[in-house]
Amino acid sequence: MEELERRIMAEGKNLGRGILKVDSFINHQIDTHLIFDAGRELARRFADAGATKVITAEISGIAPALATAHALNVPLVYARKTRPITMAGAVFVEVAPSHTKGSDVFLMVAAEFLKPDDRVLVVDDFLASGATISALARLVEHASATLVGIGTVIEKRFEGGRDDLAHLGVPIVSLAIITDMSAGKIVLE
Amino acid sequence: MEELERRIMAEGKNLGRGILKVDSFINHQIDTHLIFDAGRELARRFADAGATKVITAEISGIAPALATAHALNVPLVYARKTRPITMAGAVFVEVAPSHTKGSDVFLMVAAEFLKPDDRVLVVDDFLASGATISALARLVEHASATLVGIGTVIEKRFEGGRDDLAHLGVPIVSLAIITDMSAGKIVLE
Repeated sequence: MEELERRIMAEGKNLGRGILKVDSFINHQIDTHLIFDAGRELARRFADAGATKVITAEISGIAPALATAHALNVPLVYARKTRPITMAGAVFVEVAPSHTKGSDVFLMVAAEFLKPDDRVLVVDDFLASGATISALARLVEHASATLVGIGTVIEKRFEGGRDDLAHLGVPIVSLAIITDMSAGKIVLE
Repeated sequence: MEELERRIMAEGKNLGRGILKVDSFINHQIDTHLIFDAGRELARRFADAGATKVITAEISGIAPALATAHALNVPLVYARKTRPITMAGAVFVEVAPSHTKGSDVFLMVAAEFLKPDDRVLVVDDFLASGATISALARLVEHASATLVGIGTVIEKRFEGGRDDLAHLGVPIVSLAIITDMSAGKIVLE
């Protein structure tokens, strides 16, 4: 996506250690135009996947996943990291080691919202190490639902997540791919 | 909003102590149709407010606020409850006592995303005690920006938040208003 790549180069900041600051348009302030364009583009790329549901992880996955679910005309489920008091029944739980927080993160989805006949598209803002997306894919597996694809807004290819997710055997689409952030650089594919 | 009220009566569960479970369509699984209809309706009600930005609090405010910002064609800013490593510069901070968590919640917005010339619409999924919305309004004040209105999807009127927010002097719009949840009831206005 050309506009997305333009914004990454114009506003993105390389904070070192692979950390990309894009909080002026992706994950604190959100450019609604851009995020809905991204959602439409992910929906177009997965138009034939027959998704019945989009799943993401709170917090920063919600916006791009909602835009994608809107374009696909299906519900969105966002996995919770802490159990809200309204989450009372059976729950699927997975653990993702968090690179940025330095500790494990729980991901929980109420069992009633992931069913064996669901065809699930995973959407997140970033594909980095793939740990969060991998945990979301395991949640889909726990529900005996079918994973149909993985879509992300920005991929940091140099972190190797794409390789770690290859065994899932589904298409992986990222709208902007960064191949190198060493020495203060931001290099797009 | 008739469809919203219908869903609350059909799927909402009164868990006691004023806690309403609507996680099948509002805040875990999201009915994208319904949430975008809600966003369009809030945008319509605030069409003349001249909002330049929508602000909400993570987590469950993000979906309705994004739908509203999309309909108003303005950016969304969601206040963070924990400081992400990408939040490096000056920050506006407020504290909201959390009714459901029993402890205080910090709300942080990077100063660069709230400016004195911004006209800000606060959107959240719930208006209950008004503590979160009040903290968001104080963030707008810290930035010397102008608060133009408050929009929520579901109001629990019996918790008194509307009265506590009246001093702000801006229109408060809720798309569904619950007047009574005593004795297991869910009573709509």
